[in-house]
Amino acid sequence: MVKEDPKSLAGKLQPWLERLRAGRPLVHCITNYVTVNDVANLLLACGASPVMADAEEEAAEMTAIAGALLINLGTLNSRTVRSMHLAAASADKRGIPIVLDPVGVGATRFRTSTAQALLREHHIALIRGNISEIKALASPSIGLGTGATKGVDAKESDLADGLQGRIQIARELARSTSKNSNGSGTVVVISGAQDVVAGANGPAFVCNNGCAAMQTVTGSGCMLSALLAAYAAVAYTADGNKEDNLRYAGLAGLAAMGICGERANALTEQQEGGNAGFRNHLIDGMYRLERLEGTAKVEVVLE
Amino acid sequence: MVKEDPKSLAGKLQPWLERLRAGRPLVHCITNYVTVNDVANLLLACGASPVMADAEEEAAEMTAIAGALLINLGTLNSRTVRSMHLAAASADKRGIPIVLDPVGVGATRFRTSTAQALLREHHIALIRGNISEIKALASPSIGLGTGATKGVDAKESDLADGLQGRIQIARELARSTSKNSNGSGTVVVISGAQDVVAGANGPAFVCNNGCAAMQTVTGSGCMLSALLAAYAAVAYTADGNKEDNLRYAGLAGLAAMGICGERANALTEQQEGGNAGFRNHLIDGMYRLERLEGTAKVEVVLE
Amino acid sequence: MVKEDPKSLAGKLQPWLERLRAGRPLVHCITNYVTVNDVANLLLACGASPVMADAEEEAAEMTAIAGALLINLGTLNSRTVRSMHLAAASADKRGIPIVLDPVGVGATRFRTSTAQALLREHHIALIRGNISEIKALASPSIGLGTGATKGVDAKESDLADGLQGRIQIARELARSTSKNSNGSGTVVVISGAQDVVAGANGPAFVCNNGCAAMQTVTGSGCMLSALLAAYAAVAYTADGNKEDNLRYAGLAGLAAMGICGERANALTEQQEGGNAGFRNHLIDGMYRLERLEGTAKVEVVLE
Repeated sequence: MVKEDPKSLAGKLQPWLERLRAGRPLVHCITNYVTVNDVANLLLACGASPVMADAEEEAAEMTAIAGALLINLGTLNSRTVRSMHLAAASADKRGIPIVLDPVGVGATRFRTSTAQALLREHHIALIRGNISEIKALASPSIGLGTGATKGVDAKESDLADGLQGRIQIARELARSTSKNSNGSGTVVVISGAQDVVAGANGPAFVCNNGCAAMQTVTGSGCMLSALLAAYAAVAYTADGNKEDNLRYAGLAGLAAMGICGERANALTEQQEGGNAGFRNHLIDGMYRLERLEGTAKVEVVLE
Repeated sequence: MVKEDPKSLAGKLQPWLERLRAGRPLVHCITNYVTVNDVANLLLACGASPVMADAEEEAAEMTAIAGALLINLGTLNSRTVRSMHLAAASADKRGIPIVLDPVGVGATRFRTSTAQALLREHHIALIRGNISEIKALASPSIGLGTGATKGVDAKESDLADGLQGRIQIARELARSTSKNSNGSGTVVVISGAQDVVAGANGPAFVCNNGCAAMQTVTGSGCMLSALLAAYAAVAYTADGNKEDNLRYAGLAGLAAMGICGERANALTEQQEGGNAGFRNHLIDGMYRLERLEGTAKVEVVLE
Repeated sequence: MVKEDPKSLAGKLQPWLERLRAGRPLVHCITNYVTVNDVANLLLACGASPVMADAEEEAAEMTAIAGALLINLGTLNSRTVRSMHLAAASADKRGIPIVLDPVGVGATRFRTSTAQALLREHHIALIRGNISEIKALASPSIGLGTGATKGVDAKESDLADGLQGRIQIARELARSTSKNSNGSGTVVVISGAQDVVAGANGPAFVCNNGCAAMQTVTGSGCMLSALLAAYAAVAYTADGNKEDNLRYAGLAGLAAMGICGERANALTEQQEGGNAGFRNHLIDGMYRLERLEGTAKVEVVLE
């Protein structure tokens, strides 16, 4: 494992934050009703503009005017799954990046088969999940309806996989997905104490920002996926290879969320608050975030 | 443009706030799942009692025991659209005021046609939208499915319309809608930096309270529409002409929301917070709000 | 009415709080979209793990891996009612406790008939409602579609029932419900200024913790029911009779919520906040709560 100078890598992230603030992309979200308000406020906080529309009558039309499509399986049902496919087809046609958050995949057959169908039928620009969710997708024979995850949380046993193991799983999943018409592949993000960003090939990135308190609030994963969708919107409209852009922009998003988490945790402890206070500080921190340099703790893992 | 003494006008608003606190009207909301929690808490904060019920099996029955019906198109689908019509018919039959928030109308054909059908088939007491949404409704040939709005936000170009232009658009929309059985017409509210309240005829009102931070939090428009529904409930049960009452009560609601926004903004800046903190302060401010006099910045525009 | 030493009773509650923190039960919630985010954060705050899944395709499967099932009728519709029955049947089969929150029962025929069907067809471990909701269920001839409740709030007239009267109503409802395969009956909780916990037989408990501010925030009842579902999960897995366990564990949950409400109210007043601040402090308080002893104000009512 060769590590690039973290300072040099961290310096490549700031421009993505600035592109996001300048671009104010519209992010169309088909997401769950548990954390949707936090998702909308986090998107506004980071500089994006959220729109939620999950009716079959309008899903494709709304995606057509958006900069990115977020699909989150948190509270899927047969109606919204149809809308997800309609919206995804609209995104495919127009080269709009799709971010998939396979919440709870592996816990029920419906979640697993829905995620698999989305991956099979559309080009997913980025998948973000915890290690249990990504393993369930990367190893269908293990994941399919075996209750591999504990509801929507990662299993303790899955957390034992080493960093190299997790990068390997991310790469395997990336290799199994379909490319878009430009030949760009899928970027896989495994979030956890050490976040991993990897595609089928190329360098893998690791982000060490964040804090354990992220697990104490509902929606920290959903908000992260929404943030990555906002970064995906600017990654796909900037010059250069879309997949390469997205690896850096995705790492910028992970660093941004991790930094806001660390700051929110410090404020919450100082105020003797709990998870509701943490959530407010997390969103407020994203609203105030200006610099990733000097605070992002990131590294490159070269094969 | 003749301007009435703002102090005199502001003095006519306080009684509506007091009637609302005393009446504690039940507001039946068929609204979106993004901001529904804030809508419920804002209604409780202002002194009203919220109830949410969007099943076809019960929508009409729930409206029948309510003081006002709020219809918000934020995350409509074919099932909830049927419930909106059932609830609206129940309100029509009983003279219960309906407030329509045509979220994102103009962005998709489904939203535009749903809003048009609601306006055609029922008496809507009050419509509240941003300038792009109201233009889309007032000029169907422009608005219909042309992506006239950027998701759910107002377009920059639409904001360029002058105050007189916006009042004119509000009047046009009011003239095109159906009256209720008492002959009362629709009151149209265009919210923005300068809020406009106008019916087909009679004086138009302008409210200059509020702050730019309102746009940084999801649901500020939805909460405003819910507040106007609470004020509509008391406007329709008080003595006097319902449409006249509602113009004053609606202005009181706009002033209340604007004042709370200004105070929330000051607190948020002081605490170096962001949009999550702002949202909490906004609702808390409504909970504490006692006086509109002295702080409401309102004026009358006579034709 | 013989009163047991409150200190002795309060001392029996702390172990249940500790079992909950240690067990981290997964609580499957089919609940309304108004307060679902607060429900999820409250569950995380108390030490449980929430999962929301309301699709017919997966409801039974998700319940099968959970420690308790929460059914909340807040925004029911025909699709989610089918999922409630599928999930409840899955719970019945596995001896997983079901907690029912019959929000707004009595306000519409759909709510009343749905609650009645759930009570008839499944073993409900615990029902939690306000006095109007519990009366509507205990006296079907009164409650059925007569608009007995004011939306989702208790009627003033119902609050006039004395403590003994409320215990009697709780017992009547408990007697009319079906037992589970172990012979355990239903525990009924009526929340209010004085919370009541009673089964068909055995001692009834009263909890005097809490504050009027609980009524100013949406979801305080929903959060309480979710908390009781978390306590039910540990009551049903601990040694001893499930119904007896649940009476004590339920009282522990009521005391926990009441204590957090009192503290949240004190903080909110100190900060000159409102209902949004109160909600955050309530959840944060549950996150920090360590001891019930010394603060729980509980008593036993022996027949």
